[in-house]
Amino acid sequence: MNTFGKKLTLTTFGESHGKAIGCILDGVPAGLYIDEEFIQSELDRRKPGKSPLETGRKEADSVEILSGVFEGVSTGTPIAMVIFNTNQKSKDYENIKDIFRPGHADFTYFHKYGLRDYRGGGRSSARETATRVAGGAIAKLMLKELGISIRSGVCEVDGIASQVEDFEYAKTSKVYALDPNIAPLQEEAILQAKNEHNSVGGVVLTEATGVPIGLGEPLYYKLDALLAEAMMGINAVKAVEIGEGVASTHLKGSENNDEIREDGFISNHAGGILGGISNGDRVVVKTHFKPTPSIFQSQKSVDTSNSEIECNLKGRHDPCVALRGAVVCEAMMALTIADMALLNMGKKMEHLKSIYG
Amino acid sequence: MNTFGKKLTLTTFGESHGKAIGCILDGVPAGLYIDEEFIQSELDRRKPGKSPLETGRKEADSVEILSGVFEGVSTGTPIAMVIFNTNQKSKDYENIKDIFRPGHADFTYFHKYGLRDYRGGGRSSARETATRVAGGAIAKLMLKELGISIRSGVCEVDGIASQVEDFEYAKTSKVYALDPNIAPLQEEAILQAKNEHNSVGGVVLTEATGVPIGLGEPLYYKLDALLAEAMMGINAVKAVEIGEGVASTHLKGSENNDEIREDGFISNHAGGILGGISNGDRVVVKTHFKPTPSIFQSQKSVDTSNSEIECNLKGRHDPCVALRGAVVCEAMMALTIADMALLNMGKKMEHLKSIYG
Amino acid sequence: MNTFGKKLTLTTFGESHGKAIGCILDGVPAGLYIDEEFIQSELDRRKPGKSPLETGRKEADSVEILSGVFEGVSTGTPIAMVIFNTNQKSKDYENIKDIFRPGHADFTYFHKYGLRDYRGGGRSSARETATRVAGGAIAKLMLKELGISIRSGVCEVDGIASQVEDFEYAKTSKVYALDPNIAPLQEEAILQAKNEHNSVGGVVLTEATGVPIGLGEPLYYKLDALLAEAMMGINAVKAVEIGEGVASTHLKGSENNDEIREDGFISNHAGGILGGISNGDRVVVKTHFKPTPSIFQSQKSVDTSNSEIECNLKGRHDPCVALRGAVVCEAMMALTIADMALLNMGKKMEHLKSIYG
Amino acid sequence: MNTFGKKLTLTTFGESHGKAIGCILDGVPAGLYIDEEFIQSELDRRKPGKSPLETGRKEADSVEILSGVFEGVSTGTPIAMVIFNTNQKSKDYENIKDIFRPGHADFTYFHKYGLRDYRGGGRSSARETATRVAGGAIAKLMLKELGISIRSGVCEVDGIASQVEDFEYAKTSKVYALDPNIAPLQEEAILQAKNEHNSVGGVVLTEATGVPIGLGEPLYYKLDALLAEAMMGINAVKAVEIGEGVASTHLKGSENNDEIREDGFISNHAGGILGGISNGDRVVVKTHFKPTPSIFQSQKSVDTSNSEIECNLKGRHDPCVALRGAVVCEAMMALTIADMALLNMGKKMEHLKSIYG
Repeated sequence: MNTFGKKLTLTTFGESHGKAIGCILDGVPAGLYIDEEFIQSELDRRKPGKSPLETGRKEADSVEILSGVFEGVSTGTPIAMVIFNTNQKSKDYENIKDIFRPGHADFTYFHKYGLRDYRGGGRSSARETATRVAGGAIAKLMLKELGISIRSGVCEVDGIASQVEDFEYAKTSKVYALDPNIAPLQEEAILQAKNEHNSVGGVVLTEATGVPIGLGEPLYYKLDALLAEAMMGINAVKAVEIGEGVASTHLKGSENNDEIREDGFISNHAGGILGGISNGDRVVVKTHFKPTPSIFQSQKSVDTSNSEIECNLKGRHDPCVALRGAVVCEAMMALTIADMALLNMGKKMEHLKSIYG
Repeated sequence: MNTFGKKLTLTTFGESHGKAIGCILDGVPAGLYIDEEFIQSELDRRKPGKSPLETGRKEADSVEILSGVFEGVSTGTPIAMVIFNTNQKSKDYENIKDIFRPGHADFTYFHKYGLRDYRGGGRSSARETATRVAGGAIAKLMLKELGISIRSGVCEVDGIASQVEDFEYAKTSKVYALDPNIAPLQEEAILQAKNEHNSVGGVVLTEATGVPIGLGEPLYYKLDALLAEAMMGINAVKAVEIGEGVASTHLKGSENNDEIREDGFISNHAGGILGGISNGDRVVVKTHFKPTPSIFQSQKSVDTSNSEIECNLKGRHDPCVALRGAVVCEAMMALTIADMALLNMGKKMEHLKSIYG
Repeated sequence: MNTFGKKLTLTTFGESHGKAIGCILDGVPAGLYIDEEFIQSELDRRKPGKSPLETGRKEADSVEILSGVFEGVSTGTPIAMVIFNTNQKSKDYENIKDIFRPGHADFTYFHKYGLRDYRGGGRSSARETATRVAGGAIAKLMLKELGISIRSGVCEVDGIASQVEDFEYAKTSKVYALDPNIAPLQEEAILQAKNEHNSVGGVVLTEATGVPIGLGEPLYYKLDALLAEAMMGINAVKAVEIGEGVASTHLKGSENNDEIREDGFISNHAGGILGGISNGDRVVVKTHFKPTPSIFQSQKSVDTSNSEIECNLKGRHDPCVALRGAVVCEAMMALTIADMALLNMGKKMEHLKSIYG
Repeated sequence: MNTFGKKLTLTTFGESHGKAIGCILDGVPAGLYIDEEFIQSELDRRKPGKSPLETGRKEADSVEILSGVFEGVSTGTPIAMVIFNTNQKSKDYENIKDIFRPGHADFTYFHKYGLRDYRGGGRSSARETATRVAGGAIAKLMLKELGISIRSGVCEVDGIASQVEDFEYAKTSKVYALDPNIAPLQEEAILQAKNEHNSVGGVVLTEATGVPIGLGEPLYYKLDALLAEAMMGINAVKAVEIGEGVASTHLKGSENNDEIREDGFISNHAGGILGGISNGDRVVVKTHFKPTPSIFQSQKSVDTSNSEIECNLKGRHDPCVALRGAVVCEAMMALTIADMALLNMGKKMEHLKSIYG
């Protein structure tokens, strides 16, 4: 239940304020060069506190590989990675020990398990996504060897939408914005919400290029279905679109179908997936993040004995979680596609003959 | 790869024009009364040809239970169900044998497997969803015993959106419409598209009521993530929203958070799910279907030797797949929630003591 | 829970006296020629009533493929197979409706599920193994393409052990005996037990040749561990040995280790498996079947209300289940090794590059 | 592939001479008191160097819990445990870097993965079993709450078999012997082998008492099949018996069947399992360990370029791995039965009603 994937599996552990968070990535083929600096650089992209647009918490997020790598290369055995927690201010959470924060998982964890680790959200904290980023980084290294690249950018903040997709710009933008012209407006919306002790939502566009035809396992491990699961499972996500997504429902069949010529598809409304299987075109996913539930306004709630209270939060939080969510979307896409690349092997008898023949 | 679920598993088989389609539903608790008439009535809801808004194909879709039921009651062993194919006109498909229909899975299946059963889409045909409906019907019977109900309706066709949610009206509406006032417009849009040999998209709203607090298994088998997978895996689906969904990204945190009082949540932007776990409120999912890819206009495509051709389809197809998709959405939600109800057992030591103590 | 395997999965259904038994074999690579006659011939090997040494029941065991095969070739989609039950004499079982037969699963099924299909043992009947043989036959076809062969023989009956391994002789022997000199004694022991309304145990030796080095997934899907699970899961099996097995515990390390030369291992005490991975040598498994629990002597038992009764069985049963168990052992080994062959793909980066490069 | 179990899952990582070994135990119900001292005491039982009968290596095997426990109690989230490696003498292994030790997994790992971590056997080292013991300890704590106890003893060494089962004696015996009279002979056999630079095999008997009726999931997750997998997957194991095991094949049906009276079964040849489901009686498993492959005599082998060499090992090794294997057998049985206890929940509709009703 804490494992993602079928042949490339990421099993994660850890609570926001426990000793450590970490993961075991199992199924990495032997002989892959494991670039530890790259893994750390991916974690650094997710790390909070890089700008006033993000939470002020400082977390080192220094990752350590415990197994599965020998002389710099994967051995085919499980790769365990651990990130020790160092900047935990658990006292910040003493006051919410017995209350349920609106929009958070406090209520459901308490009732499901009969108790909860209230410190910083415990297991339900987005801090756990650091381990996904670590696992995703290795998936990216593997995909790179196959010519597959993954990148992302923020395409919408508080309803302010990008008009272009400039992934290069996104890399250096404080809001990971895809559109240089719109970025300042998006930034402003975030800062305004922050000043009002409020928060805003946002949308991340993630793409994979170089994906070979044939990835995705019908009928119940389809590429689009799994990407939907992968993205919807990220904290605060409330909607997922593939390709044209919601907009496709406003088109006629004649407009939405992607016609085909010798050199490939003429358009890509499908987002690179047909029948749950990659068609060789760019895979495109939009992930919608709700506004951060942690706001600094008084809110109505109840405590663990169901008495009504006013909830007044302290602490430090991102006013727009979509920003730091972008690198998590990439990680989840990388893990999903790498898993699919492994699963697809052996789907034709000729695959088997090429390996065992 | 053809199995959905973890503890309640639906494994399906069958091609559109093969001998039969069917499924094995494994994990149904012993002692559940299996109402065969209800199962058949659910299949009848999905069955095509009920109105001019649907494909003219006639399929009996008569389901037969082969195992797992004794004297009308589930025995705890796998329940196999089979639907023999009876109205297959495979000749209709001779002409598409070597070509790839735009918007269909022909292209990807052929390249993934190196060959394909071209008759009626083979395995990728939406006909397979009949087996999901059969499995979903048993899941509904199980959920009913726990006080959980699932229903659905079409909330949007060709961009024409419902203003109200009248599930009772939807039951008898030809377009499964949730809004009696909008239904005629939606119907008209479909007929017009049909007359123009074209197709339109649509959106289905599915809800579950009576869901206890605590269903959903964090962090990688969350209720929302699995609903997203379940729905995105249905043929022609391109987007999935939970609760407020896309619209939540346009709200401020103070607007989107659901405050809590003694008697429960004041609002339900969350769609009944927090941290991937049901919160006791109504579970709400929106599923977006693209316009039917099968249209009767000439389209550019290629054949299996990658020569450019014009694709002109014959046959009978639904001009809006969302209509018959509604009952499939219900089935997938039922299977997902029933699976979660089983998985949640044993999450507290007190569960174990109540059963083994 | 009714599914065997990870990448090649066999999901079975059906009760001894229900409408049908059957299976879905998922994961077969596309492009495999499916020899239906061979599948039926394997079922015929398992079919009862071939000699006085077996139960007198006649079952046609005629298998029908419902899906996954097109123009004689696997398509990569699930292969469903069904065997309709035709010779069920359910009345024979009316008298055991409320009692628990010693040595049978009646007692445990009743208590686990709260009810049971008592007709012929229901789901716990060895009749279900016919579906394993059907699935195993396809696994054999797949393995044959890779140069892997599987065969078996009875090496012991009622403590009377073979001295040689003559698999060719076993094929035509009434007792599937590996040793032509011992076969008559084994046969006699069975007939004598039958005449005394009793039963005897037996041991099956199964081997695979041509297995490439590298099959088996450490640490929790080892080839030997999975073969042990596969064999121990067959009805009436109480012990499983790999290679030298029990006897290896009586050897010194210096005797038991298989030394290695340029052209391979000098001996094969390991049974072709080291560290849970095939070493290229012959894979050897011994499977021990207890004496058939159905005997025609009066036995002490209780009924469903826990009152003490005398249990006197009627009907027709094999006096030694190991005989017909041999072909089931082969099927389970074939399914296991075929699964491992698929799982092993992608364990080296070079595998991925050869397929995607 | 490095995960054991279905609902209670143990995923392990780590190499003999890497930074650490460890595991994630997922699925532990919330509200279980986690006795860390008990966990450590179980690891101490497995720890080498307690007598001259064991390897002289010293390993602290100090376990640290990283997650899933809050205020001494399980929270329902994954419990990660880590054991840092401290006494690694990797230089001892430089000389075997390029050669394959007979009886070891060197050969198969190298060929499967194309490279190997040769230090101390890497992933294939029995050192990994420490993590199983850690996970098994928590499973035992859980089972204890349900009245289930697990214990073990060595019943045979080098062919010298126990006549009695004195589990209390085993606890303090240097050879974990079940029979006080035979223990000195077993001890002598081990020391003699050690003096001769050789090794001997042994057999461990493991039992579970207090197991409720109904554990085990037919047909492909049977209790006996899973125990067979669990035990056969332990390093050096070559045979597994349930209950009467091999000996049952020498009995007649009338001797082997366990007759039933009001107060239960008269005998227990079945080893507490019928049809793959626990029958309420004592669950009994025998696990056969081959003689330790590491011996200090010259052996024929080849190197990684397939040149013939003489293999002369140095280092410190157990002359009989069955001794320290006993606690590993207990751990695997505890994990298996705890998993089964969780899986069995929800097998009757009344279970669901008692929890959700």
